[in-house]
Amino acid sequence: MTDLARVRDVLRTQRIETASWAYANSGTRFKVFGQEAVPRDPYEKIADAATVHRFTGVAPTVALHIPWDKVADYADLARHARELGAELGTINSNVFQDNDYMLGSVTNPDPAIRAKATSHLLECVDIMDLTGSRDLKLWFSDGTNYPGQDDVRRRQDRLADSLAEVYARLGDGQRMLLEYKLFEPAFYMTDVPDWGTAYLHCVALGEKAKVVIDTGHHAPGTNIEFIVAQLLRADKLGGFDFNSRFYADDDLMVGAADPFQLFRIMHEIVLADAVGPASGIAYMLDQCHNIEPKIPAVIRSVMNVQEATAKALLVDHDALRAAQDAGDVLGANEALMDAYHTDVRPLLRDFREDLGLDPEPLEAYRRSGYFDKIKAERVGGEQAGWGA
Amino acid sequence: MTDLARVRDVLRTQRIETASWAYANSGTRFKVFGQEAVPRDPYEKIADAATVHRFTGVAPTVALHIPWDKVADYADLARHARELGAELGTINSNVFQDNDYMLGSVTNPDPAIRAKATSHLLECVDIMDLTGSRDLKLWFSDGTNYPGQDDVRRRQDRLADSLAEVYARLGDGQRMLLEYKLFEPAFYMTDVPDWGTAYLHCVALGEKAKVVIDTGHHAPGTNIEFIVAQLLRADKLGGFDFNSRFYADDDLMVGAADPFQLFRIMHEIVLADAVGPASGIAYMLDQCHNIEPKIPAVIRSVMNVQEATAKALLVDHDALRAAQDAGDVLGANEALMDAYHTDVRPLLRDFREDLGLDPEPLEAYRRSGYFDKIKAERVGGEQAGWGA
Amino acid sequence: MTDLARVRDVLRTQRIETASWAYANSGTRFKVFGQEAVPRDPYEKIADAATVHRFTGVAPTVALHIPWDKVADYADLARHARELGAELGTINSNVFQDNDYMLGSVTNPDPAIRAKATSHLLECVDIMDLTGSRDLKLWFSDGTNYPGQDDVRRRQDRLADSLAEVYARLGDGQRMLLEYKLFEPAFYMTDVPDWGTAYLHCVALGEKAKVVIDTGHHAPGTNIEFIVAQLLRADKLGGFDFNSRFYADDDLMVGAADPFQLFRIMHEIVLADAVGPASGIAYMLDQCHNIEPKIPAVIRSVMNVQEATAKALLVDHDALRAAQDAGDVLGANEALMDAYHTDVRPLLRDFREDLGLDPEPLEAYRRSGYFDKIKAERVGGEQAGWGA
Amino acid sequence: MTDLARVRDVLRTQRIETASWAYANSGTRFKVFGQEAVPRDPYEKIADAATVHRFTGVAPTVALHIPWDKVADYADLARHARELGAELGTINSNVFQDNDYMLGSVTNPDPAIRAKATSHLLECVDIMDLTGSRDLKLWFSDGTNYPGQDDVRRRQDRLADSLAEVYARLGDGQRMLLEYKLFEPAFYMTDVPDWGTAYLHCVALGEKAKVVIDTGHHAPGTNIEFIVAQLLRADKLGGFDFNSRFYADDDLMVGAADPFQLFRIMHEIVLADAVGPASGIAYMLDQCHNIEPKIPAVIRSVMNVQEATAKALLVDHDALRAAQDAGDVLGANEALMDAYHTDVRPLLRDFREDLGLDPEPLEAYRRSGYFDKIKAERVGGEQAGWGA
Repeated sequence: MTDLARVRDVLRTQRIETASWAYANSGTRFKVFGQEAVPRDPYEKIADAATVHRFTGVAPTVALHIPWDKVADYADLARHARELGAELGTINSNVFQDNDYMLGSVTNPDPAIRAKATSHLLECVDIMDLTGSRDLKLWFSDGTNYPGQDDVRRRQDRLADSLAEVYARLGDGQRMLLEYKLFEPAFYMTDVPDWGTAYLHCVALGEKAKVVIDTGHHAPGTNIEFIVAQLLRADKLGGFDFNSRFYADDDLMVGAADPFQLFRIMHEIVLADAVGPASGIAYMLDQCHNIEPKIPAVIRSVMNVQEATAKALLVDHDALRAAQDAGDVLGANEALMDAYHTDVRPLLRDFREDLGLDPEPLEAYRRSGYFDKIKAERVGGEQAGWGA
Repeated sequence: MTDLARVRDVLRTQRIETASWAYANSGTRFKVFGQEAVPRDPYEKIADAATVHRFTGVAPTVALHIPWDKVADYADLARHARELGAELGTINSNVFQDNDYMLGSVTNPDPAIRAKATSHLLECVDIMDLTGSRDLKLWFSDGTNYPGQDDVRRRQDRLADSLAEVYARLGDGQRMLLEYKLFEPAFYMTDVPDWGTAYLHCVALGEKAKVVIDTGHHAPGTNIEFIVAQLLRADKLGGFDFNSRFYADDDLMVGAADPFQLFRIMHEIVLADAVGPASGIAYMLDQCHNIEPKIPAVIRSVMNVQEATAKALLVDHDALRAAQDAGDVLGANEALMDAYHTDVRPLLRDFREDLGLDPEPLEAYRRSGYFDKIKAERVGGEQAGWGA
Repeated sequence: MTDLARVRDVLRTQRIETASWAYANSGTRFKVFGQEAVPRDPYEKIADAATVHRFTGVAPTVALHIPWDKVADYADLARHARELGAELGTINSNVFQDNDYMLGSVTNPDPAIRAKATSHLLECVDIMDLTGSRDLKLWFSDGTNYPGQDDVRRRQDRLADSLAEVYARLGDGQRMLLEYKLFEPAFYMTDVPDWGTAYLHCVALGEKAKVVIDTGHHAPGTNIEFIVAQLLRADKLGGFDFNSRFYADDDLMVGAADPFQLFRIMHEIVLADAVGPASGIAYMLDQCHNIEPKIPAVIRSVMNVQEATAKALLVDHDALRAAQDAGDVLGANEALMDAYHTDVRPLLRDFREDLGLDPEPLEAYRRSGYFDKIKAERVGGEQAGWGA
Repeated sequence: MTDLARVRDVLRTQRIETASWAYANSGTRFKVFGQEAVPRDPYEKIADAATVHRFTGVAPTVALHIPWDKVADYADLARHARELGAELGTINSNVFQDNDYMLGSVTNPDPAIRAKATSHLLECVDIMDLTGSRDLKLWFSDGTNYPGQDDVRRRQDRLADSLAEVYARLGDGQRMLLEYKLFEPAFYMTDVPDWGTAYLHCVALGEKAKVVIDTGHHAPGTNIEFIVAQLLRADKLGGFDFNSRFYADDDLMVGAADPFQLFRIMHEIVLADAVGPASGIAYMLDQCHNIEPKIPAVIRSVMNVQEATAKALLVDHDALRAAQDAGDVLGANEALMDAYHTDVRPLLRDFREDLGLDPEPLEAYRRSGYFDKIKAERVGGEQAGWGA
């Protein structure tokens, strides 16, 4: 088999989940700029996600956010997805938008609020039973804004208690993915600020608990691919929330800010033979398309992940390892860079044609008339956003 | 005169402006937690600001934000303020919340939108004529999220054109304060990201244009007091937006995150004899009290600035300079730290009693019943926030 | 017992270790500025350390650095220390200055170099047997400068192997302290970059392995006191390398850059009742006095730690906890800040007089004539530095 | 003319200066790892630089560092360079390695030391007269380590005085390039920390004073290409010190850490039509090859700049501008990224063959036997380093 055939074989196993909320309005604390034709309910979000999959072929599942995507009948929502060629994916909990959560959810000083938050997480597992989702993704906005505001260790204890209760509720084949984030919306202290904290709790919980890496959730200068490698080594990498950033949690399109970093991350993944679903790693996009049209932005993001993966797959591991073992600094770096500098767009065009897709997903999407159709259809009602 | 008397004399000249929007609801992109008794209109905001002044004695003016604080009759608003012992202060423009501004205001690629933005700024000067405000504060959220999205230099040209038009409109005794900010809400490039850019434009404009430093608008590791000193030296420091931050533009209470930094800033101010109004430096608070009660938080912030100023005033400049000139590193540092380590709270209690105020503003406020009163009064209507 | 008496009682249990190399020349990559009267051998370093203890009363032990402090007869060195009222403390290994270590020590691609490095670590344990030291502190400069230069996971495996071999060699009552550092001297990837990595390895090794926190080894924006609390909770905090920084690993005097941060760290320590030696936490200074005189700088640093500790001991824990439990954000912050704002220097003067010391250690040192004495004595020979 | 021909035409005008000290030993504060065959004097450094030019064709000049490259007869050194096909370039001053400069050079509190430093700068202009160099590059390590150590504004005044004295000495066609740096070796405050400060002084001095951007001298998150564009707009960009960094001033090979950033910088240069010497912008490498062989690392760095330039030259400016003007965020970004994703290595191979060079400079260098030759020749003597 040629090298390119091998690359295409691995790319064929790759799955990139998109997020329902990426199709809805989002913004900064200064302003949410509403866009045209934005979905008004989970059904329309799934339609958009299915459209992304139709043109990319590798994004069949869509992550839901509860309560933003609460529906009366999840079986019906799943059927709707299947009819459009898509599937329901990860369930994302939300314990940060109720007024009660001003000072925290599962780490709140008030036991009644903690119980409410845990109860919401358990409800998410109920929904997973209905949707057949494998993964419960937990991101906590919990933290404090001022030194002294609350007690670090007591908050950790509360977190551990809540996680244990939810973990115990997980069924066979269900998992808990714990996300960490340095800051925002809490500004002094975040209860799960780093991979170390997420790892510590996941180890305490057991095998079904894994760490999820959001590529925008680190301090400046953090070597993210190191964390990827470390968690792979410890068998605790549960998945990614892909996006990109220049400063903080900018939630820009993945690969837009630092495509070389994305390549280095995928290089660690390829080294560990973890591109495909057998790895148990969930590859998700978690982005905010505040000023660019959303569906094309998601398509572009999927393509960016594919291109980084293709480049990583082109690394000559034998040459790389030989140079590493020989202490040949420049040679080892060159082995990596040689793949990075390669233009993999022709390869991906071929790959898409093999799949029976248009080689240029963005152009095909633009020609498809989908946007005009939803612009005509989605009149009236309230556009979905982070609040719904 | 004793040292303490001299300190109190300078403190008596200090004025700290509070911001109308600090009394309104604010939050992060994830959630705005509404609070009790929040003002519903500019009149109520001014009432809260006047209350802060009543208990602190050094915060007589309140900055307005246009259009959030638009009223039909500014003379009436000014009268309202005066009746409560307060005054209208700086006019803050807002060209970031209209849908048209999604890709920029005065730097927008579309000339019609630029004209609209400039027109808003000119309208702000009209309002200054009515309110008698000296300063127009300009903060532009303008920038881009993606490399290539727009042209850096052409945007600078557009910015320069708009500023020149507004500058030409300023009357005698009116000034333009140009604020810079590293990032947010723009994530790749901000059109006025640093003091260098603000300085360059202010020099081009003329004497009425000055730079304003928001203490939360810098990259990690930036030495803010250096910028203070540099702008003082160049006679281009127009004022401060005080707040504090651990990570990004957290907008926490000034002095809460790094009280030593605030002290170092005030040390540069004191060295330049620039505490009082004769310096032409506008000392403002620009903070978001997302989870703490707003009026007490503003009172606390005013106190924090006073305490930092009092400590800076206690620095023995002769000893400091002697040690500096002698190359005595530890001695010079000790001269500074000696003042910082001093507990100035007794001094400030005396100072307040001299002014006929309660020595403990927060306790006095809590005892005053003001909060219960506004809680009872402010029923119905819509709470003010960043949108209004 | 009064509050102040209680504070003094705890302060009396505090021990702060100083580092032999702090008395030697140090600098940046641009220049090492030699100072007057710098020690020329370990005996003279210990004499300086003993002098610091003589004036502070809380710094009896001195950490050694191998091979910088290699001597023929450690029993003799220990006797020398005891005669001066001091003791030998932690053994710090050095596997970063031999030419062989250019591409790493225990993580080097070359097994012979790894063996050499591990052998050095084992030799350090041999020295611990001779000196009676409890702790072996491991800091690895290992890492890579360029992406691809070496394999992250294979380096972790090599690290784990070496650590296991050394751990197995530890005697009863001996411990291994593993230090982490974000970057420098490796610039792309550091093999132990964060507390998560150090924690992961220490857990794998066992109870005698603990994490050591150098306060200058984090990314910008990292909440260090959170890590302190987290490691305390996990019973994995082995000690501190105290210093301070504005940007990177500046190695300035502890408390000089951000005294409020030092206070917050000590607050977590006090909350966990971990000030004294019973906690098993080693409090060390690891600083570089590049431009200031070294002995006074170390004395000042010891005083800075004491002052931060005294302030932390003054926090009213009942009031703090009551406010925290009530969700009183401002009240809880005030409870903390109230202690921070207190001037504890009088308390520490009393404390020192209770110990029979001069209340002003720096002045007493300056009056003592020690510096003139060593200036006269230390003529000829080669000043000690990082290379020896 | 085809697009590729146009690209090659511009590339043919490009000149990249290499630094004499890049061929000498360098390291971190922890260790300088000596390498084989390192030059022992300026003549050998120039021989290495000429070798880089021989294989790349675009690096004819070599920057000198005074006093590291002091020689008795600069005319002879220039003749030596010419014989090897090279030329002497920028003169870099060094006022940071004399013991007198511990507390600063031109900003030192001691007027005698300031005079000595200024005198060194004037001597550098004397050398420029001898070497025919156009540019004097000034980097000051001056700053302070501790708050209070010295007075910010007085140091600025001293800096201004010294710069004015040196500026007055410049001959026709000579320029002064002022470099800024956030931190290191000063840790609290640097006297020229940012482009704003360098710009302010250069404006005060006059047209012969320009700002030089070292790509490793910024705070995290700084948008360097913005500064490039801003200085181009103000006609104050004098040149670059190229290198790359992940954290601080790592001085890695340019393009190694963030090739996309280098491309964005070159995109601003190309937009301003400033690639060639007519622009008056000096493109220099300032790197430290601590662990990789030096000559190949410099060749690689030259190639990295060329590749980034070639990509920038491929940007379709019409398409870019059309998308920008239309507010087409994704389209404008795509226009930029399309060029970035292109593999320009074939184009550069052709370019080199056009110049009569081997298309693969690194392989040609390795085959040339140059390294074996200097390894055999450079026996004995003392290797050059930052100290000499």
